[in-house]
Amino acid sequence: MGEFELIRRHFQRPDRALPPQVLLGVGDDCALLQPTPGHTLAISSDMLVEGRHFFADVAPHTLGHKAMAVNLSDLAAMGAKPLGFTLALALPHADEQWLTGFAQGLFALADAHACPLVGGDTTRGPLNLCITVFGELRPGEALRRSAARPGDDLYVSGQPGEARLALEWLMGAPWACSQLGNHLPAALRSRLECPLPRLALGQALVGVAHAALDLSDGLAGDLGHILSASGVGAHIDIAALPRSPALTALPEARWRDCVLCGGDDYELLFTAPVGARGAVTTAAQRSQTPVHRIGRITAEPGLFTRDAQGRTEPLQAQGFDHFKR
Amino acid sequence: MGEFELIRRHFQRPDRALPPQVLLGVGDDCALLQPTPGHTLAISSDMLVEGRHFFADVAPHTLGHKAMAVNLSDLAAMGAKPLGFTLALALPHADEQWLTGFAQGLFALADAHACPLVGGDTTRGPLNLCITVFGELRPGEALRRSAARPGDDLYVSGQPGEARLALEWLMGAPWACSQLGNHLPAALRSRLECPLPRLALGQALVGVAHAALDLSDGLAGDLGHILSASGVGAHIDIAALPRSPALTALPEARWRDCVLCGGDDYELLFTAPVGARGAVTTAAQRSQTPVHRIGRITAEPGLFTRDAQGRTEPLQAQGFDHFKR
Repeated sequence: MGEFELIRRHFQRPDRALPPQVLLGVGDDCALLQPTPGHTLAISSDMLVEGRHFFADVAPHTLGHKAMAVNLSDLAAMGAKPLGFTLALALPHADEQWLTGFAQGLFALADAHACPLVGGDTTRGPLNLCITVFGELRPGEALRRSAARPGDDLYVSGQPGEARLALEWLMGAPWACSQLGNHLPAALRSRLECPLPRLALGQALVGVAHAALDLSDGLAGDLGHILSASGVGAHIDIAALPRSPALTALPEARWRDCVLCGGDDYELLFTAPVGARGAVTTAAQRSQTPVHRIGRITAEPGLFTRDAQGRTEPLQAQGFDHFKR
Repeated sequence: MGEFELIRRHFQRPDRALPPQVLLGVGDDCALLQPTPGHTLAISSDMLVEGRHFFADVAPHTLGHKAMAVNLSDLAAMGAKPLGFTLALALPHADEQWLTGFAQGLFALADAHACPLVGGDTTRGPLNLCITVFGELRPGEALRRSAARPGDDLYVSGQPGEARLALEWLMGAPWACSQLGNHLPAALRSRLECPLPRLALGQALVGVAHAALDLSDGLAGDLGHILSASGVGAHIDIAALPRSPALTALPEARWRDCVLCGGDDYELLFTAPVGARGAVTTAAQRSQTPVHRIGRITAEPGLFTRDAQGRTEPLQAQGFDHFKR
């Protein structure tokens, strides 16, 4: 199978009508994309490398899903609506079965969010997936990292920490294996391998939230990006953090590490003014996404935890860094 | 050096004012890009892999240039004006000197075309560069592959084939070494490693040319994409093909192979109606780009060469295919 046949067979979908924003899709020098008049284009790009972002033996369907999910999650964090994506793919060889599974996982999630493939590139090389995703929103609506204000409430969606437990079990960490035994529950594996981008929540938070981002490198480290971009500090109420049933049996320090420094959560972390609490609840309900109020933005810089007794201590959490581990 | 420090040091440019179309650049979940009202977004993505698209020992400055050039060339082929680009980069390790050179080569060309970096990703892995580039044009102006019409003249810019000779010399092909001796002329090396995207020509051809594409896989193979997309055929006048002084001493068959099947040319191949010959000349002059009229589009399918005596024969040329070699 040649390069063009590979693209035609797995990535061109003549049976699908292209949505109206795609004036020209796969097959020319460029794709042509038309955002809604008055809207701005939101763009994000993520590269996934074997051995860094996924295991060599991961199911191709799962990998297709995750590659799409981490990109859509960036649109979610901005409050943007998906328009389309490009896929650049380096493959060691053209494996029919692998490509079929990968394309199924990729398109199942992309289709669910009406996000068509508009172009890309295919080459031979060590397995590497680079997706660039496009969304749209009105210019003033974007949920920027720099928009947190002192006094804002701090929120997180879903159950951060579960993906970390699954990862540690897969990597054979003794504490994770003694916690879970010989079997990784499917729901927990799914939290690591098939995260669901919080697009509905992100769009529902437009006009409600101030700052937002998606959790990829750990809650505490990612929160640090909001704090430095906004020139503020925060405290996190430990008692208010969501307690996933899967994590409750962990020792407290291990639990905290999973929730605050886990990574791979793809939940939304956002701030909103106190007066918007009702609107946040409505956004959570409309998007059918659990949301937890976990702390407060402060004028004083620094990141602190606060326990049930009101004692605060500084939180020194490091997010994941590809060039430090 | 950590990931964020790497990005800050080499790819953030606080000294540069972002152009007005970039509402938000590097550092948030998404970049925000605002095309001119009434314009459409043109998008192209290219992935470059060590050992496939470049030699492991290529100068990083050269690699930065080429990665940018091949993407801008896709905008040129559409007639689009650059707006910005994202860069996803997998690196085996964070090498300061390499990154400095790479960024210099990349930004020198990007700056020359007012094309700012708006976002991207950095990770550890086998060296892989994925650039996605964005341009704009009015929806009806795009130079599509499907727009060739029977009777159109066929044109090519520059000197296709020179890059192939340089590549063969670098790979030690005996015929190339006997042609050039022990020294690869700088101008020839530059044609392979530092191609100049024909953006000015592409934009000047808007409203003049019918179909266009940029030559990456060889003139004959790439022309095949225009022919199949447009449902037409073509003949190429061998005597009209540009004869680069660097290639004139080659045997005729070898010369033809370089010019028609060379690859890596990044010249524009385009069609235009006979009535537009004057306008094509004007576009070539305005953009200071040499352009050669090399053949004709025909209603009958098939690709033929025609010699000085008017004899035609079918041309069976295969473009480069990453999964066939």
